[in-house]
Amino acid sequence: MTSTSNPTAAIMIIGDEILSGRTLDSNVNTIAKFLAALGIDLNEVRMVRDVEEQIVSAVVALSSAYDYVFTTGGIGPTHDDITADAMATAFGVGISEHPEALRVLQERADKMGWELNANSRRMARIPDGASLIKNPVSAAPGFQINNVFVMAGVPKIMEGMLSDVAPRLKTGRKVLSWTLKLSYVGESWAADALRDIDNRYADLSLGSYPFGLGQGEFGTQLVVRGQNAESLDAAVSELKAALEPVISEGRKRNPEARLEEITA
Amino acid sequence: MTSTSNPTAAIMIIGDEILSGRTLDSNVNTIAKFLAALGIDLNEVRMVRDVEEQIVSAVVALSSAYDYVFTTGGIGPTHDDITADAMATAFGVGISEHPEALRVLQERADKMGWELNANSRRMARIPDGASLIKNPVSAAPGFQINNVFVMAGVPKIMEGMLSDVAPRLKTGRKVLSWTLKLSYVGESWAADALRDIDNRYADLSLGSYPFGLGQGEFGTQLVVRGQNAESLDAAVSELKAALEPVISEGRKRNPEARLEEITA
Repeated sequence: MTSTSNPTAAIMIIGDEILSGRTLDSNVNTIAKFLAALGIDLNEVRMVRDVEEQIVSAVVALSSAYDYVFTTGGIGPTHDDITADAMATAFGVGISEHPEALRVLQERADKMGWELNANSRRMARIPDGASLIKNPVSAAPGFQINNVFVMAGVPKIMEGMLSDVAPRLKTGRKVLSWTLKLSYVGESWAADALRDIDNRYADLSLGSYPFGLGQGEFGTQLVVRGQNAESLDAAVSELKAALEPVISEGRKRNPEARLEEITA
Repeated sequence: MTSTSNPTAAIMIIGDEILSGRTLDSNVNTIAKFLAALGIDLNEVRMVRDVEEQIVSAVVALSSAYDYVFTTGGIGPTHDDITADAMATAFGVGISEHPEALRVLQERADKMGWELNANSRRMARIPDGASLIKNPVSAAPGFQINNVFVMAGVPKIMEGMLSDVAPRLKTGRKVLSWTLKLSYVGESWAADALRDIDNRYADLSLGSYPFGLGQGEFGTQLVVRGQNAESLDAAVSELKAALEPVISEGRKRNPEARLEEITA
């Protein structure tokens, strides 16, 4: 494993639009990158429907298993926005209109020249004891309840909310990574070198991700990840050396066989 | 709920590259659309790391909760490809070289003029009792064990495998959907009409998905979903009628306020 002492996290994506195939989720990737930069290990993701029991049982499981849970979706003004109620149920607290949430909603409506109707006002309903998460895009706040950060589903709003979440998180050692691109050699030819280094460097994790698959350029990207820069550098040097004969052999099959560093 | 009698399904995405943020998953969306077209209800997705205990516990939970489970990732030739072993553990069976899997791998290698090395040959290791899933792209097969379909992580290969999976599935009533686009009116103004119809049509599900958020065109997409075409048509007609006064009001605030059908 790459990280034993880093804080751990899970993501829960809430919404029928994801599970029906209507929408391709991008929030997992955004949050995953955000957490990686903070040295927080993302261990699990769940995607659930707009069904209260499903949301409740998933958040109960995840919030007890990990240090942090990040949810997206279901905090708007319509009937299918049930996340706030589900969180209140999950944590056994009431839900009521939060004065500060109402204030920011009213302020935004005034500024835009809108009337704050009863549906918009529902977005001020926050589980008791939760703290607000600022929404720099459209005002309606998210909230933190215990170790769960409840954010909007709209990617731009969700990203904006992460800025307000970041200072609340314990951070860990950032996971560093190197990527090597092995071209015109199938990944099975690199597998022995990878396995050997994976076995000998217990603090690193190695991955192999094939691309191309026979049409035009093909090969595999080799990713070495870990918290310890020295260990990482040593492993990458060893991997490169171990791949030299693999590439020489590969050139006999395809003269274009080569290894490149694509990130450092 | 949209569907009480349709078969149910879950997806499990396996791979550190997803949870590290390196790769944005698109397989959930592809499988979700595939299942929607077959009338199979996708109820849950989990994404897990390349960690055997995590894979095992997720697949045990999902395979007992749903009719079908679809997994992607971890069936290649390298040390981080542990899905086949995890499935054997999860279902308490052995794992051994499958003659037909070995035959297709050897056939592909012969055709490409490659040597089938020991690492590639590992891809013929299949849990005992599983049936193979054809891989029309790169030969290395997936497999079905009980109600679990184990597929590759590379999107093009995964899609190819779905063709071989489709005939094995019980199908349900396809979920039909209508999408209306409400422009220059915030979703909170449509919420009453949506809630009313959602309450009165128990066999349909309604969703509201805001877009734009104040910059240029903004508004919300209203999605009505269900299996019964008559019920769906009636609800959409009612929704359109209920939104007429909303749009008239909206035009007072923004003359461009309008409703369009964007799919039928």
